[in-house]
Amino acid sequence: MEKIKAALPKGFRDFLPEQTAKRNYISQTIQSVFEKYGFQGIETPVMENLKTLTGKYSDEVNKLLFKTLNSGDFLAKADADLLVDKNSTKVSSQISEKGMRYDLTIPLARYVVQHENDLVFPFKRFHIAPVWRADRPQRGRYREFYQCDVDIIGSKSLINEVEFAQIYNEAFEKLNLKVDIKINSRKILMGMIEAIGALDKATKIITIIDKIDKIGLDKVVEEVTQLSISEEQSAKLKTFLSTTDINQIELSNDTLKEGVAEVQFILKYQVPNVTFDISLARGADYYTGVILEVFCAEMDFGALGGGGRYDNLTEMFGKKDVTGVGISFGFERVYDVLESLNKFPENIQSAPTLLFLHFGEAEQEFAFDLLQKIRKANISSEIYPDQAKMKKQMKYANGKGVKYICVIGSDEIESGALTLKNMETGDQESLSIEEVIEKLK
Amino acid sequence: MEKIKAALPKGFRDFLPEQTAKRNYISQTIQSVFEKYGFQGIETPVMENLKTLTGKYSDEVNKLLFKTLNSGDFLAKADADLLVDKNSTKVSSQISEKGMRYDLTIPLARYVVQHENDLVFPFKRFHIAPVWRADRPQRGRYREFYQCDVDIIGSKSLINEVEFAQIYNEAFEKLNLKVDIKINSRKILMGMIEAIGALDKATKIITIIDKIDKIGLDKVVEEVTQLSISEEQSAKLKTFLSTTDINQIELSNDTLKEGVAEVQFILKYQVPNVTFDISLARGADYYTGVILEVFCAEMDFGALGGGGRYDNLTEMFGKKDVTGVGISFGFERVYDVLESLNKFPENIQSAPTLLFLHFGEAEQEFAFDLLQKIRKANISSEIYPDQAKMKKQMKYANGKGVKYICVIGSDEIESGALTLKNMETGDQESLSIEEVIEKLK
Repeated sequence: MEKIKAALPKGFRDFLPEQTAKRNYISQTIQSVFEKYGFQGIETPVMENLKTLTGKYSDEVNKLLFKTLNSGDFLAKADADLLVDKNSTKVSSQISEKGMRYDLTIPLARYVVQHENDLVFPFKRFHIAPVWRADRPQRGRYREFYQCDVDIIGSKSLINEVEFAQIYNEAFEKLNLKVDIKINSRKILMGMIEAIGALDKATKIITIIDKIDKIGLDKVVEEVTQLSISEEQSAKLKTFLSTTDINQIELSNDTLKEGVAEVQFILKYQVPNVTFDISLARGADYYTGVILEVFCAEMDFGALGGGGRYDNLTEMFGKKDVTGVGISFGFERVYDVLESLNKFPENIQSAPTLLFLHFGEAEQEFAFDLLQKIRKANISSEIYPDQAKMKKQMKYANGKGVKYICVIGSDEIESGALTLKNMETGDQESLSIEEVIEKLK
Repeated sequence: MEKIKAALPKGFRDFLPEQTAKRNYISQTIQSVFEKYGFQGIETPVMENLKTLTGKYSDEVNKLLFKTLNSGDFLAKADADLLVDKNSTKVSSQISEKGMRYDLTIPLARYVVQHENDLVFPFKRFHIAPVWRADRPQRGRYREFYQCDVDIIGSKSLINEVEFAQIYNEAFEKLNLKVDIKINSRKILMGMIEAIGALDKATKIITIIDKIDKIGLDKVVEEVTQLSISEEQSAKLKTFLSTTDINQIELSNDTLKEGVAEVQFILKYQVPNVTFDISLARGADYYTGVILEVFCAEMDFGALGGGGRYDNLTEMFGKKDVTGVGISFGFERVYDVLESLNKFPENIQSAPTLLFLHFGEAEQEFAFDLLQKIRKANISSEIYPDQAKMKKQMKYANGKGVKYICVIGSDEIESGALTLKNMETGDQESLSIEEVIEKLK
């Protein structure tokens, strides 16, 4: 048999038991908050029709899709001339109908339209699952990574935006991370651009404002000026972008009025850690109302999540005016921050509480009987399965990270007295099996 | 914008909130048992190199793989003549390097070899995750479905086999399902075939025995006879296959002796619901020692899981003599059985405990303040977010399956007395907010 190298495709990762436990800790913590706020989990397939995936996205994003080769004689229907020309782009659509989901938003839109009659609206769902991007792999960027989204579809109320800020606070508090939450409204951004008379350049201006954290206010104004904007306009923009108090914004058009009213509504609820930031932009497309972003307050790490209101979720499926609002948690970033700040709880590895070691076959049989009693009390526990030197068994105990061990030799069989050793402190106690159960329960 | 049909690829499924909750119930129940027995979860990517996936499997299985089109100008390196010939099979390997995992066993083998130095052996892992097969979709057979595997790698002890039988019992007891567990050893099957002098036809004979549940003993013997086997041989085979008592088996060769000793070792532990079945075969390849299979004892449903000992897990990666033993749960079948027998617990939908309804803006604000107190007590709860007619809000309450509702009108604001309604019984109580919290906690 030809020997195959045990290796993964580039940009993909395995997770060791400890990493898996840490990832589960994050998703379970966040999920418990979602459920507390009345959201329910759903599942969608990892593959979607390419028509669904490419319907909304630009060509550039299209290149990042992992596409699935059609089954069987996939070349049969491909155009012979295109094959001869090696026209990968056009052949691609003839030999591939499905692809891996690129995010959890497009699947949500499809799901909402497809199952409209089976869902309760407003539809409150969360989805914590992997997505795939055929990106160039680099440090901290993977081809397979988790997204963690929570959305409510079909409710216009700004109460939802308030609750999403609360969800950020509660989830990060549970994760033991201090955070800042910035909010703004796309309507404030658009109203501001309208006020300076540059609506025709709105997308470009927002893209530039989006970089303010990296390049600063002066450079933003400078770059905007290069879009053939007058000095007067850019001075006015600078004044806008320098505003920190929502009540100081000059309400010179209806869009601004609406946006300011939205943000004021939310601020009224005094959700902790929430501040208004007029320069918060969150990319150029997609969002139509309030936007928010959450940052680690303990170290400079960029955003740990963000979200906002969008009004055209299902338009591509011919269903208009379905409003949604949601946030996401940057799952992999949260992992990295918790790791950097050493904030994962101890003993997260879900290692069993007790491990029995033994000096031989008779001892193992004796220990196996004890193990049954321990497990009957619902204590996670195991026995070293093979006959092996104590040194090897101890290495297993240490590597696995069990909390207690109990070594069974002939003395223990004779007396029935067990020595329970705490692997963290090194403390040893002589106990009966009943006392061991009582202690570990 | 062109309208796209909201639809899934054939053979793929969405899960509604209730289905998702039921699936989580199954996986969490089983996972809790795995952890109790000292197994730890791992994650591997959904895609593997095709070399890894096809290394071990036959051509037939190769056809069932979902393959991923290489990124970028994938046709550039393809052979022009093969493209002109539309040779799908050969072109496939030139334009696709990755594919979707077909099971969780090959990824485990790769993982064990790749991370050998980071793992603790014996390595006890579980993996509950989807796999993909480009099968023809049909009733009960999907292209994306969950597998649920638990294995121990690097331990020869038969104690493991005993514990796997216990795990089946404990998991299915938690799932409220009565089961029968059949065990056998591949060595008994091979020894029996050796005893009748037909080792050269072993694979074919085992494949026929594997069908005994469907076709019965007489037909098995008849089919085996057609493999040019003498009447004496087939009579002997029939005698073997009629044996129900492990101690009655004639130990006419070493393989039989070993196999019988293995099964006797396990039976000695008297694990409930375990019986010896000499005709249990579990397919033709792969297994080398004890095999086991679990069946629903409450309805005729075929196997709900199976497993056994295998000795050449990592051979394809050039690492020999790594023994493993494990079982799997037929996740989708378990779901179907629980559904058929109506055995899912009630209130599984993880719907929030309490929902506030309200008659207007002032009432909503009042309710929102109450909601904060409820949530502070860690009770899952929500508020109807929009201003809507009570009928619409009640429809939401019923659809979502919340356990209690509390309607806020002007009376409630004035008096502070709340009416808590149990949605299952219809009972109503007048309570203060503190009493509501006390009751729902």
